[in-house]
Amino acid sequence: MREVFKNELDAIADELVSMARQVTAAIDSATTALETNDLPLAEQVISGDASVDAMQAELDQKSAQVLALQAPVAADLRVIISALKMSVAIERMGDLARHIAAQVRIRYPEPAVPAQFSEVFSQMGRAAHRIGEAMITLLDDPGTAAVPMIAAIDEELDTLHLRVFTIIGELAAGDITPSQIADVTLISRYFERFGDQAVNVSRRVEYLLTGNWEPALSQRPQQ
Amino acid sequence: MREVFKNELDAIADELVSMARQVTAAIDSATTALETNDLPLAEQVISGDASVDAMQAELDQKSAQVLALQAPVAADLRVIISALKMSVAIERMGDLARHIAAQVRIRYPEPAVPAQFSEVFSQMGRAAHRIGEAMITLLDDPGTAAVPMIAAIDEELDTLHLRVFTIIGELAAGDITPSQIADVTLISRYFERFGDQAVNVSRRVEYLLTGNWEPALSQRPQQ
Repeated sequence: MREVFKNELDAIADELVSMARQVTAAIDSATTALETNDLPLAEQVISGDASVDAMQAELDQKSAQVLALQAPVAADLRVIISALKMSVAIERMGDLARHIAAQVRIRYPEPAVPAQFSEVFSQMGRAAHRIGEAMITLLDDPGTAAVPMIAAIDEELDTLHLRVFTIIGELAAGDITPSQIADVTLISRYFERFGDQAVNVSRRVEYLLTGNWEPALSQRPQQ
Repeated sequence: MREVFKNELDAIADELVSMARQVTAAIDSATTALETNDLPLAEQVISGDASVDAMQAELDQKSAQVLALQAPVAADLRVIISALKMSVAIERMGDLARHIAAQVRIRYPEPAVPAQFSEVFSQMGRAAHRIGEAMITLLDDPGTAAVPMIAAIDEELDTLHLRVFTIIGELAAGDITPSQIADVTLISRYFERFGDQAVNVSRRVEYLLTGNWEPALSQRPQQ
């Protein structure tokens, strides 16, 4: 984000990049906790999310300071407004990683994910990692290349989300319990939303770079 | 919101109230569509959501204008920053109403909700209506009374969300299909998130009124 923010806005850019790094680390740990049924790791993701929330509060405060002290206009003002919106999306990504970790804790010592779903969730976890990395790249050094990459990985996540529903639809009676079906539905939804929020961030950056505003996810097909 | 925003900020307050009215009407229609398996009504909710998105874009533009032309500081600046954040939450409430309506469309002509769940979802719909109305009241004429009311209704929604998982846990094999379990899990989640977003809005208003900032939902227990 260096070229876009420049000078005094660097602190805000740094905060966004730090938040992006933190939520990417969180989704990685949540995925590992899910794959290995690692309760301490899940606990770590859950307790660690408070610092993402604190970062959002700090970023909002810095943005308010810049607005109050420098009264930016035009491009600089757009950057601040976008940062305020992006921080909501990134903070939410931290929540979603925490929700996945919470599923591990709720079901422990049983695994949160029945065997039929372990492969698809590992794939979702890897896609979530890549979309997090692409978001860090985009915020750290924005260029149009990361925008379509994020869109492509988000489509992968949507396809995997549909795959979860296909596996659910193919279950034989008694394969897994109704509660386990509810669990995998929610976990899949959390990964899928993680991707959506990265797209929200990338749309904001694209808007800063090009001036074109796409009103995000609202018209996309559901489930 | 009249006292908080005053004068030139009135346009922004009006936009927030209009958005709140629109998403409350949307959740009402989505609930009715769910209860009566009304496809045209569901379609209306789905297509109507674009106007909520447009209202958010318009509100952002107005906020940018006020920031650029008037360089507000102190309380007025906090109001604008809060409005930018609140519009994200209210827009999301519109998405959630649309997601519920989309479930009706996806399953039509089958009902989206199996008989075992119709009562709990009607209760969730009524609670979502009340939380929407409380949010309109809060934004239209802020006072501390609406804040605890929103928190209380949100707790009702959380309790009903847990009730859905209890009903799922008590299902006998073959009562409903695995796909239906996934459906009711998501519908319940959408109603529950509708409440969370109203709480996010009320926390922002409370912050404007009192200066106390509660970092929202992040520490709340999951599922």
